Amino acid sequence: MSIDYAARSLEKHGEWRGKIEVVCRVPLETPGDLSVAYTPGVARPCIEIQKNADLSYIYTRRANLVAVVTDGTAVLGLGDIGPEAGMPVMEGKCALFKTLAGIDAFPICVGSKDIDDIVNAVALISGSFGGINLEDISAPRCFEIERRLKERCDIPVFHDDQHGTAVVVLAAIINALRLTGRSLSGLRAVINGAGAAGIAVARLLVATGLSHVILCDRRGAIYEGRDGLGGEKLAIAGITNKDKRKGSLGDALTGADLLIGVSAPGCVSGEMVGGMNKDPIIFALANPTPEIMPDAAKAAGAAIVGTGRSDFPNQINNALAFPGIFRGALDVRAPGVTDLMKIAAARAIADCVPWSQLRPDYIIPSVLDREVAPAVAKAVSDAAGG
Amino acid sequence: MSIDYAARSLEKHGEWRGKIEVVCRVPLETPGDLSVAYTPGVARPCIEIQKNADLSYIYTRRANLVAVVTDGTAVLGLGDIGPEAGMPVMEGKCALFKTLAGIDAFPICVGSKDIDDIVNAVALISGSFGGINLEDISAPRCFEIERRLKERCDIPVFHDDQHGTAVVVLAAIINALRLTGRSLSGLRAVINGAGAAGIAVARLLVATGLSHVILCDRRGAIYEGRDGLGGEKLAIAGITNKDKRKGSLGDALTGADLLIGVSAPGCVSGEMVGGMNKDPIIFALANPTPEIMPDAAKAAGAAIVGTGRSDFPNQINNALAFPGIFRGALDVRAPGVTDLMKIAAARAIADCVPWSQLRPDYIIPSVLDREVAPAVAKAVSDAAGG
Repeated sequence: MSIDYAARSLEKHGEWRGKIEVVCRVPLETPGDLSVAYTPGVARPCIEIQKNADLSYIYTRRANLVAVVTDGTAVLGLGDIGPEAGMPVMEGKCALFKTLAGIDAFPICVGSKDIDDIVNAVALISGSFGGINLEDISAPRCFEIERRLKERCDIPVFHDDQHGTAVVVLAAIINALRLTGRSLSGLRAVINGAGAAGIAVARLLVATGLSHVILCDRRGAIYEGRDGLGGEKLAIAGITNKDKRKGSLGDALTGADLLIGVSAPGCVSGEMVGGMNKDPIIFALANPTPEIMPDAAKAAGAAIVGTGRSDFPNQINNALAFPGIFRGALDVRAPGVTDLMKIAAARAIADCVPWSQLRPDYIIPSVLDREVAPAVAKAVSDAAGG
Repeated sequence: MSIDYAARSLEKHGEWRGKIEVVCRVPLETPGDLSVAYTPGVARPCIEIQKNADLSYIYTRRANLVAVVTDGTAVLGLGDIGPEAGMPVMEGKCALFKTLAGIDAFPICVGSKDIDDIVNAVALISGSFGGINLEDISAPRCFEIERRLKERCDIPVFHDDQHGTAVVVLAAIINALRLTGRSLSGLRAVINGAGAAGIAVARLLVATGLSHVILCDRRGAIYEGRDGLGGEKLAIAGITNKDKRKGSLGDALTGADLLIGVSAPGCVSGEMVGGMNKDPIIFALANPTPEIMPDAAKAAGAAIVGTGRSDFPNQINNALAFPGIFRGALDVRAPGVTDLMKIAAARAIADCVPWSQLRPDYIIPSVLDREVAPAVAKAVSDAAGG
């Protein structure tokens, strides 16, 4: 099926010549129009903004404008394909921002892999925007880039591959727990994959109150004191895996209730799932091929399975989160997206599936459900004050 | 009058909340739509661009996209008002790009006055665009910024305050000569003001074949060997004022046919105009108050007067040039805007006033004339091959 979509996508992209467009919102027909929208009249809003830079949120498009920024180093499952080659994804994201949340989003690719270059370029142009959505930037560079941009910019900076994923995963967990009658505090979760998504999911689960979280990388469970840990993995080791369990992914999964795979195709076996607690929850999010296929996971005893794909039930996709999160943040001009705002977003997404309709193959709303982004936006803007 | 436009402009800017908008060009209603415009299908155009970066001009919006970049240091007559405060002008420019030439233009303000910072930021994001329009960047910084960006970017980089002004001035000159029966080669021209516009006008007039050009700054005529000359003024001294005439603006104007003022309000007297050759041509472009008011210039003997204002005849405004120049450059994917392309643009603008309709108060078409940009675009794209 993906082969068909690939061919169709190439054909349509060649027709579209861009999935977004910049249009003019004002009349420019008469000399009077020009004098109001341009010179000489335009000097007046300029002067007002000079006196009070906050007025750029009134007199320009800034209040509704998000930059979708990439360096093209971690695009989809394609990896480091270069900045220009990442742009069709960025435009797609901008199209979703507009369609789902009414946000003007503009794609920017940065022609460097150097952290200083990227941070400087984005920080220097940030005054043109109301928010920055970082996208498809490889780990571990993405962590430092986001951290430094948050320090330098006075607008929300949000690396979607981290936090968007974490929010939607948390939403899926909330409903999976409702359905299986488990509590968040007692849940034993294992995350496989210590890249951008895995690190962010681990952090958000801990912030939400999960006591038992183990993050695994290719070497197995990450624990405090493991040889050679550095950077984000070292930091994560300090807040997860309190029992300092060691061993392989299979070892970590023994007695676990939940597996979140943000790793590589096919790396989870039915045997591993079989070693988990009864009725385990499996989110196998590797794209396009999951860590374990849904049928295999169910055959091994999984009660609930989610993937990143649209052709299986329970698609765990960032598009459920980022439009509403930015909408909510822009609406109240939040300076950033806090954990409280992310958790509120996750709860709002989960609540878009009525409890009465919850079933193992319907724990998360459709990406195309137009009610999700407004609900998320409201929850996020409410939480921004907290 | 300008007071009314100021109040009206502030009110309308507060209503508009932005003069441009980013919209979605593709359907995103069904799962199939998503699979074509976004994942998984979008991987295919990404891969094609990775193989051949030129395909970013086919599969993304890039081929029709211009960045309008400022640092806010020389905005209108307001001066250094800061990057955010310059944005209403940039948005106005983007609105004109779209309305007059169908170009998607996006405003970017850079939060630094440092030349290295600006060059790096713009060069790093240039892969997102098909062209760069630099705007309202103060001299002499603008010259180095443009020069270095031209070296680093493989797309057209065009500082409109320089070249747009020069093109429209040349167009006005062409028709003024037609009307007064003078030849370009015999014309004695004086330019007052050695900023971005004055330098660029001088260069373009020399490139067009004018032998007698004198550029004046606050100290008077610029000539080779004058004390303390540096940078662009030194370079200009080598290609203008071959007779090395010295003295004040008034001295330079003695015996001149044409004055181009890109300087300061009221700095040209009727006496100076009276000292010029018979039937002089006066383009007094300081905004909002010209170097000499049209009535005073005419009373002193001027045959033709142009200003930058919409409320006098012969408005010499960059909006006659930049939309068509970029349209033409984008249409043929020209790597830059050459002098030949600028001269072709000037001739095309001049030709938009039919010879039969030429009169002293109608030597230049209206900024709102929708035939100008397409005519300029065709001339520019034709000249790009030359």
